[in-house]
Amino acid sequence: MNAADSQWMALALRLAEQGLYTTSPNPRVGCVLVKQHEVVGTGWHERAGEPHAEVHALRAAGKSAKGATAYVTLEPCSHHGRTPPCADALVAAGIKRVVAAMQDPNPQVAGQGIARLRAAGIGVECGLMEVAARELNIGFVSRMTRGIPWVRSKVAASLDGRTALANGSSKWITGEAARCDVQHWRARSCAVLTGIGTVLADDPQLNVREMPAARQPLRVVLDSELRISSQAEILRNGHALVYTACTVDAKLKALSARGAEVVTLAGLDGKVDLFAVMRDLARRGINEVLVEAGRELNGALLKAGLVDEMVLYLAPQLLGDAARGLAELGELTQLQQRVPLQWQDVRQVGSDLRIVAKISREK
Amino acid sequence: MNAADSQWMALALRLAEQGLYTTSPNPRVGCVLVKQHEVVGTGWHERAGEPHAEVHALRAAGKSAKGATAYVTLEPCSHHGRTPPCADALVAAGIKRVVAAMQDPNPQVAGQGIARLRAAGIGVECGLMEVAARELNIGFVSRMTRGIPWVRSKVAASLDGRTALANGSSKWITGEAARCDVQHWRARSCAVLTGIGTVLADDPQLNVREMPAARQPLRVVLDSELRISSQAEILRNGHALVYTACTVDAKLKALSARGAEVVTLAGLDGKVDLFAVMRDLARRGINEVLVEAGRELNGALLKAGLVDEMVLYLAPQLLGDAARGLAELGELTQLQQRVPLQWQDVRQVGSDLRIVAKISREK
Repeated sequence: MNAADSQWMALALRLAEQGLYTTSPNPRVGCVLVKQHEVVGTGWHERAGEPHAEVHALRAAGKSAKGATAYVTLEPCSHHGRTPPCADALVAAGIKRVVAAMQDPNPQVAGQGIARLRAAGIGVECGLMEVAARELNIGFVSRMTRGIPWVRSKVAASLDGRTALANGSSKWITGEAARCDVQHWRARSCAVLTGIGTVLADDPQLNVREMPAARQPLRVVLDSELRISSQAEILRNGHALVYTACTVDAKLKALSARGAEVVTLAGLDGKVDLFAVMRDLARRGINEVLVEAGRELNGALLKAGLVDEMVLYLAPQLLGDAARGLAELGELTQLQQRVPLQWQDVRQVGSDLRIVAKISREK
Repeated sequence: MNAADSQWMALALRLAEQGLYTTSPNPRVGCVLVKQHEVVGTGWHERAGEPHAEVHALRAAGKSAKGATAYVTLEPCSHHGRTPPCADALVAAGIKRVVAAMQDPNPQVAGQGIARLRAAGIGVECGLMEVAARELNIGFVSRMTRGIPWVRSKVAASLDGRTALANGSSKWITGEAARCDVQHWRARSCAVLTGIGTVLADDPQLNVREMPAARQPLRVVLDSELRISSQAEILRNGHALVYTACTVDAKLKALSARGAEVVTLAGLDGKVDLFAVMRDLARRGINEVLVEAGRELNGALLKAGLVDEMVLYLAPQLLGDAARGLAELGELTQLQQRVPLQWQDVRQVGSDLRIVAKISREK
């Protein structure tokens, strides 16, 4: 692989990004076909059920595809899903060489697409710009390899880490630009998850606003005792999922009437089983989850090791120690018990700072 | 004034910065003499009692000073202090034009140096790069115009704003690079101030280490009930000042024996009067104060409006809501009661983030 390969793969990644808000539960994938240093076809996957990136690119190239090199951000598929295998299409079109950014993350199929291409005599290289390719499909990779989604927790706080006053006031700590920026995280997520505390206190909709949304994320509420009102805003327009630890038939009917699904997943402590929730969400094809919750649910998810990334908006202000913190972790007795982070990105958004950090898995 | 003027003033400001750690209680001042587009002399003020920047520059220029333009970061002095007036020296040397970044901030003398130059027929312009010049002497300006020092509060915290575990553990939340960076803030400050709580809990020295220090800052402890041990590390090597609200003769003797000065400044609430402390420090020639304290003293100073700037090191970790916050402000009931900030600088220092923000005076 050489510099030109990187250039075409970078283009394929940019194409793949076009699907940021639409492809789920499928991964975001881009494809560039190059022959004699010229692009003869490009494509990206737009939404599930529609053609894969490779098919779009092959159609665009037509007969020019013969003898071309295909740059794809993910190993071409080898199975019949809703569309025929892309590996076969590449072979049929006479593609000479395939450069893939990464293998299919599903351990049960990984490598089969590549094997199929190689069996047809096509030269295949894999791993170019793999880090960027994995980041782009971080939720899909998580679901395929861990059986749970990638979980981001979004928090809006003052510089001293306070998300609300003691009396609950929190409108608004961060500015309009930050609140608008949040819409992009929601829009790329398959689900937005919150706790019953937030629903009762703020009655949020948690839908995508202020930007064109190809699809709304699934709204998910964790509500161990099923205290949610059937009139809650989060149930508006259906497409909501309530996980509970109990069964209240009358309530179930009222919630169902509003288009919400209620699932009972009780843990040993009588609360909703957080691991079971994540496994269930993955089973439903949820790649990325955005948590927008208070300190209790944030703390519970962090303690369970189920948060992968923090998206923290820090407003230029101090609210003081009496105000509410962002994560109830219980009392630590040693600094080694801290939740370690790795900075990913720091920037100013309007008047606020936005800090993205991943939870560090090696302590 | 033109682009060349700015270039020479920028050079004068860089020269002035050389005095960052040494000039107090005097301001940091730089001077550049230019004739026919060439520098004929430069100088900067190094320490009180030694020649001012203008004198160094005139000496360097010798006879070439005649007919030159002088760029000075502060209005030349017009009074006999420990050295003769620089305005007179500039006149005597035959300087033709003077460009000053800012007037003398002391309202009682401001403009007199300029008037003296003008009376001698020298063309004088004032205000070039004034913002940078004021920043460089922010403490001196504060002392001259407000009668109190510029107060920075340095805090080392986790990303969720926690400075210690509930049990007091705080060694170390931030990394070595951040702790080393703190030394520079200490070294440029005339005084480092802390509370008795921090002295009793951590027994810190609060001196400048790990860098060559031309002078150590005055160590200041606020200790209403005079609970400090005469063996406290902060008293080591003398040059410490303890403000108290009570008088305990035996204790005074022991503290004096260790070279500490004890001053009683009681407020109506029986605690040390914070305003009186700041006025007293200004009277002692203290320009910049670095506060390194816990949430109680930080909160008290913030509530009193006596903190001007926050220097916050945020470590990549979460400690949770049970851990200690950074400022006890009492319970706010409305978001408008928050302490508003203005971002000044955000950067990575080692593995930590360093955020500098000024307290915003317009709510």
